[in-house]
Amino acid sequence: MNANNIQELKAIVGSQWVATEKEDLICYGYDATPGFFNLPEAVVQPGSKEEVAAILKLANREKFPVYTRGSGTNLSAGSVPAQGGVVLSTARMNKIFAIDPENWTAVVEPGVIVSELNAAVEKYGLIYPPDPGTVTTASIGGTVAENSGGLRGLKYGVTKHYVTGVEVALADGSVVEYGGGNVKAPGYDMVMLFTGSEGTLGVLTKITVRLVPAPVTRRSMIATFADLAGAGRSIAEIISNKIIPATLEIMDNYTIRTVESFAKLGLPVEAEAIILAEVDGDADTVEADAVKMEKILRENGGEVRVANSAQERDQIWAARRAALPSLAKLRPSTFCEDATVPRDKVPDMVRIVTEIAARNKVEIGTFGHAGDGNLHPTIVTDLRDAAEMERVYAAMDEIFKTALRLGGTLSGEHGIGLGKLKYMPDQFGAEGMAVMRSIKLALDPNNILNPGKLVGEVH
Amino acid sequence: MNANNIQELKAIVGSQWVATEKEDLICYGYDATPGFFNLPEAVVQPGSKEEVAAILKLANREKFPVYTRGSGTNLSAGSVPAQGGVVLSTARMNKIFAIDPENWTAVVEPGVIVSELNAAVEKYGLIYPPDPGTVTTASIGGTVAENSGGLRGLKYGVTKHYVTGVEVALADGSVVEYGGGNVKAPGYDMVMLFTGSEGTLGVLTKITVRLVPAPVTRRSMIATFADLAGAGRSIAEIISNKIIPATLEIMDNYTIRTVESFAKLGLPVEAEAIILAEVDGDADTVEADAVKMEKILRENGGEVRVANSAQERDQIWAARRAALPSLAKLRPSTFCEDATVPRDKVPDMVRIVTEIAARNKVEIGTFGHAGDGNLHPTIVTDLRDAAEMERVYAAMDEIFKTALRLGGTLSGEHGIGLGKLKYMPDQFGAEGMAVMRSIKLALDPNNILNPGKLVGEVH
Repeated sequence: MNANNIQELKAIVGSQWVATEKEDLICYGYDATPGFFNLPEAVVQPGSKEEVAAILKLANREKFPVYTRGSGTNLSAGSVPAQGGVVLSTARMNKIFAIDPENWTAVVEPGVIVSELNAAVEKYGLIYPPDPGTVTTASIGGTVAENSGGLRGLKYGVTKHYVTGVEVALADGSVVEYGGGNVKAPGYDMVMLFTGSEGTLGVLTKITVRLVPAPVTRRSMIATFADLAGAGRSIAEIISNKIIPATLEIMDNYTIRTVESFAKLGLPVEAEAIILAEVDGDADTVEADAVKMEKILRENGGEVRVANSAQERDQIWAARRAALPSLAKLRPSTFCEDATVPRDKVPDMVRIVTEIAARNKVEIGTFGHAGDGNLHPTIVTDLRDAAEMERVYAAMDEIFKTALRLGGTLSGEHGIGLGKLKYMPDQFGAEGMAVMRSIKLALDPNNILNPGKLVGEVH
Repeated sequence: MNANNIQELKAIVGSQWVATEKEDLICYGYDATPGFFNLPEAVVQPGSKEEVAAILKLANREKFPVYTRGSGTNLSAGSVPAQGGVVLSTARMNKIFAIDPENWTAVVEPGVIVSELNAAVEKYGLIYPPDPGTVTTASIGGTVAENSGGLRGLKYGVTKHYVTGVEVALADGSVVEYGGGNVKAPGYDMVMLFTGSEGTLGVLTKITVRLVPAPVTRRSMIATFADLAGAGRSIAEIISNKIIPATLEIMDNYTIRTVESFAKLGLPVEAEAIILAEVDGDADTVEADAVKMEKILRENGGEVRVANSAQERDQIWAARRAALPSLAKLRPSTFCEDATVPRDKVPDMVRIVTEIAARNKVEIGTFGHAGDGNLHPTIVTDLRDAAEMERVYAAMDEIFKTALRLGGTLSGEHGIGLGKLKYMPDQFGAEGMAVMRSIKLALDPNNILNPGKLVGEVH
């Protein structure tokens, strides 16, 4: 980039929306992933799709990289400006254009915060189900680009199950629109192609999502297991009894001990695992499912506590929500991964991760979404300790290769970014990667959009 | 194609699986869409993915078209070999590889018939929800390629909501695999890109689908409306009361009269519309929703009959199932379209289609999936009557343009194929089409896969 480029950016968005001072740039040089940092050359904050399109047209002509950034909560270095260029922040594009309570849809700009959309649709008795841990800070655009999940994924699915329309500014500065309020639509599924594409194919400028009725009621419980196998059998039996909890979470012993030492919630520090579960829906179904689920948990050795008030429910979920923050307090650096395995492999995966931690002499707490196999082995370490970091990366290699060996995937909800890029050929093979790269090149021939991420280098 | 090509095809699959006699070719020259016919040069029936890959490699080298064909039930001329070349039938690739009752998945070859999969998973208390009208004849591969819907779409969604993994032979003869049993996966969503791509990007050789628990019970009802507006209000109120019927269908007066004259089911031939609905799920929810739904239908002027036995239920659905066959008996040619509009525009669309029929002096019966706005305006006519056909095509133009004007889409579940190709730029614009064509060219640079369909000519 040269001084002219900066001037042109200022002409597009107004000079107050272009930052080039080092103290500003530093804030946009990293995201929530440890170990990745690089200064961008400028940060630009467009206020409309026309401005986004003009920025891309300029970048495409001058061939500088554009890194779209929502709230920077990314856990796979997906929003780090690794090759310089411009960070395009969607923070100003935060309008809710429309909520349609008849057709259960909402149309939003990418910078709307997920929890703000939920607050806005609540009065119609509707919810937008995807609820990543960062729901109060993450932008919808970021969650669509990363296909984020969350605690309710087992019953409600992930972000892709709710996106029905996208307006996208492409690398050449044209703006296209696919889908809309209809669930059914013909043509290549461009809506799904852009969803989860991690900012490598275009910049989302408008998103249409599907809403669903809020559940009438819900029931939460927590079960303590002396042995992991009992927790595993419980998960299998809950599902095989055709109960679909909204949330079905697991925490391993390391995580339990860590949460307890910080949050003092009275968790059983000797337990090998705890399961936290919630069923929601109509009153009768919830009641029946909760009774069945409690019985299954007990029969498999679980000590069960059912929440009998909103306060007791909050206590249960406070324990789950404390998992990542508590682990993060242990050491200076936290790698929260999201290796995903088939549901019936969850106990194997938890056990193997514990073995990997011991073998490599690193500290790993594992918790996560047992119901859909999406675990969060969380490595706590210190980036400044080179010897330990070598063991951390070795452990990470083993974790991801184990997930794939068990029939799983590299990422359930955090994306690939740069963090997991090197494992991609293990999952997709050379030919599978080549096809994805051919799509990247078809849509972004100059490789200006989040270059080097997800599909790696394409030239 | 030359004689050598035919010999090479025989070498790949065995000579008994290559047909070149005219009487064989004729059977593969058309599908269920009137007005489209062309002879292929050969029909080839591979028995494995290796054979499919070898056929594509040959076709790519020799640059002849390949038209993948399931059971030929397509309603948009998607499987017609319009430019000669080879029809690739998946009929022999009909193995169910695996059913996993723990993880609720099934892995099948593309030639498996949809109802056969349902029969195979029934004993585990599971269902595969997509149920196009052709469920007993359509192949899973065809329904994935077309992203087929069906009667249960409102609650259960369409085929794309159940496909979690695909193995695909590409134009160059390589075989790639994306997704699998996990709902969560990183990378470009290639599974969704191939789903609904109408055979233009690759040939499906293996498909993984998600299964769901069979509903415990269900309740059906039929409601007769003297005026269409009452039916429309009912649909809106059912949804705004947060009831999600598995099935919520509408039939207009023309369809009612036609069904009654053929099937003698005691339908009210004076009614402007009937609504047929079914709620399914747990016993208590079904009971509560059925009571609420009946009340809404009555309050809006509906005369309601609730099925109190399996036999009465069958009677209700026999009326709906008789719609297309009855209309098809009226005249020699039947165009069953699937223009889709937002749910709240269904009454407008039904009324406008009736006006279009009158204005163009053609006969149109409209029925379909009111709950998701996916209607089937069905034009009955005679292809041999050139003057009438001119009016038919004029009416079709008006129908599709009306659907788009009301915020809808060209196709809810039948695909674009050749039948609706000319309307695609109206929905996607020149730039939207260009992006889809760039993806087609990235994956199929020689344009051998179902050329000319869905995205039109690409060179």
